Amino acid sequence: MADALEDDREAILSANAEDLEEAKGLSPAMLDRLMLTPERISDMARGIRALIPLDAPFGRCIGEYLRPNGLVITKMTVPLGAVGIIYESRPNVTSDAAALAVKSGNAVLLRTGKEAWKSANAIVTALRRALRTANCPEDLILLVEDRSRASAEEMMKAKGYLDLLIPRGGKALIRTCVEQATVPCIETGTGICHIYVDKAARTDMALSILDNAKTSRPSVCNAAEVLLVHRAIAESFLPLVWKRLVEQRREKGLSPVSLRCDERARAILPDSERASDTDFDTEFLDLILAVRVVDSLDGALMHIGAHSTGHSEAIVTEDESAAERFLSTVDAAAVYHNASTRFTDGGEFGLGCEMGISTQKLHARGPFGLEALVSYQYRIKGSGQIR
Amino acid sequence: MADALEDDREAILSANAEDLEEAKGLSPAMLDRLMLTPERISDMARGIRALIPLDAPFGRCIGEYLRPNGLVITKMTVPLGAVGIIYESRPNVTSDAAALAVKSGNAVLLRTGKEAWKSANAIVTALRRALRTANCPEDLILLVEDRSRASAEEMMKAKGYLDLLIPRGGKALIRTCVEQATVPCIETGTGICHIYVDKAARTDMALSILDNAKTSRPSVCNAAEVLLVHRAIAESFLPLVWKRLVEQRREKGLSPVSLRCDERARAILPDSERASDTDFDTEFLDLILAVRVVDSLDGALMHIGAHSTGHSEAIVTEDESAAERFLSTVDAAAVYHNASTRFTDGGEFGLGCEMGISTQKLHARGPFGLEALVSYQYRIKGSGQIR
Repeated sequence: MADALEDDREAILSANAEDLEEAKGLSPAMLDRLMLTPERISDMARGIRALIPLDAPFGRCIGEYLRPNGLVITKMTVPLGAVGIIYESRPNVTSDAAALAVKSGNAVLLRTGKEAWKSANAIVTALRRALRTANCPEDLILLVEDRSRASAEEMMKAKGYLDLLIPRGGKALIRTCVEQATVPCIETGTGICHIYVDKAARTDMALSILDNAKTSRPSVCNAAEVLLVHRAIAESFLPLVWKRLVEQRREKGLSPVSLRCDERARAILPDSERASDTDFDTEFLDLILAVRVVDSLDGALMHIGAHSTGHSEAIVTEDESAAERFLSTVDAAAVYHNASTRFTDGGEFGLGCEMGISTQKLHARGPFGLEALVSYQYRIKGSGQIR
Repeated sequence: MADALEDDREAILSANAEDLEEAKGLSPAMLDRLMLTPERISDMARGIRALIPLDAPFGRCIGEYLRPNGLVITKMTVPLGAVGIIYESRPNVTSDAAALAVKSGNAVLLRTGKEAWKSANAIVTALRRALRTANCPEDLILLVEDRSRASAEEMMKAKGYLDLLIPRGGKALIRTCVEQATVPCIETGTGICHIYVDKAARTDMALSILDNAKTSRPSVCNAAEVLLVHRAIAESFLPLVWKRLVEQRREKGLSPVSLRCDERARAILPDSERASDTDFDTEFLDLILAVRVVDSLDGALMHIGAHSTGHSEAIVTEDESAAERFLSTVDAAAVYHNASTRFTDGGEFGLGCEMGISTQKLHARGPFGLEALVSYQYRIKGSGQIR
């Protein structure tokens, strides 16, 4: 499959050029997501090759029980069957998702955004040829032809045909899936991530983590959206935040971060914007940070409990017992002590390539890949046992 | 909690007597399910005591990753949070489910059938008092007061409040959950279980397994509903089935099994009933067996693939390679070689007490208990790492 992608480089680039031509009206960020280059195709091939040395996740014995009546029960991992993925315009998702699905023994039904369909079709054509060459059924990888909304909705209702549906996209898509899907889903993505700066934080570390979590890639789900500051250090810390995220960025010719502050924070940073109530429940995906002063660690835990999307949350503190309390109390896929939320990523965790980041608690949580694409079954061997 | 149940024996029995009085019109089977006796209360207490020596499923480290950048990542099991259970009239489900939920660190919201509400309330009253005595929050166990359909529907939509919903009941309840619930569910129960008697089957073993799977407790989900027979032995085997399940049962004064046969089976058993198409897709939960002659192992696999509910399926054969093919091909929670499907049960598998039998593939499959009531989270400790 990796070879086939590289063999078809020209055909894929030319299909991508057609997609780009038709997508001219889109934002530069969208066009960048959609655009393929020879390097990006090599990256896709590299992603597939990285799967080769990994053990397949199916066919593993994960439990064995010899019963007093002589029954031998083995619990074996098995492929889920047919996995559907609804995604948007990044063409690399086509090859990543197809490779992960095939490596884990599944068939995959891909439904890309209409602006990326020709690119996806060229990629799928290469991957299917590779399957044929390897004497595998090419229909292990299928691309939905229909580019209307109807096909996405049909996938959500395809219970009995699809064993799993993974929506990778915006909030609206994920909400629609949760509300309408009869196929089991893994929810991915929405991240309203908090950085809580405790009274016992080291200021330099807190600033560096906050800056990284907010500004290194604001458009991704593991970026920070909310800063909570303990009141005991708010007066000294918040002006440093202003300096770092507003003034110093301006001096460097970078867009400043827009700080949206609650009343107590605005009393310290009078030039900041006033936060509205919804600002503490918004995934900005932009250079915007909601800021709130809290009275205590408990105040931070209460706020996070009420507003978290269960993605990634961090505490910065030198107080080990505060850190322990935070890590064991916050109900999120990834909880951090003295590190940036930006690390929530399959590669950064050392888990290999990922299919997405789950914000649900069932089946898979946090970054997930091959391991989440299997189920298990009990196989029981007897010699005529009855009950 | 076990002690409290026994202490409140009289109050529970008297609440149960009121439920039974109001339920007079129900079938004897329903009344039997609803009825409590001192022995049944002792069984409930025993079920709770059986949990005491087990390790709690939360707070376990199930993965540890030391990253090159110094981050220490641990993958820890955590309670799901709040678990909802919608069930019918068996009062022991109240104590089983509450005990499993509390043992796994969760709060539980119980919604019993209205005919069993007073019994459930008396049980919950005892269990909550036990929590108080042990300085645990009594609201870990809550019984829904509203006895109308509306409360069940509200639970299905309580996303953000309930982390998991387990419907334990009839097909209609489970279908409604799958279609309407926004809370993640574990589907339990529907079992259209097949016994495939291969051409290489030992006839006596096949008869014994079939008899056990069909008649030992026809009302449960792991009972067999369909017999598939290889054509090479149909002529010799089916008359023996008739003798065993119809004639011999009549002789013993037992109700005979009603055999609903396809055309080829009826040619061999002319006194049997004619099967309709829906008979091969019906969970009879009664002394009824659909019977079909198949041309081959592949024919059996095709039939099961098309009609299975993914619960429990069995092959009877002395041919190891046919058995291996069956076990590795059939897509069900439990697949059997030369044993009765009736063994699909947490206790029989040696897994401890169960919350239900999952027929879905995500999160939990087959008999599930404590282990399915937890999720996991990644806890990351750093010293200021940024990405």
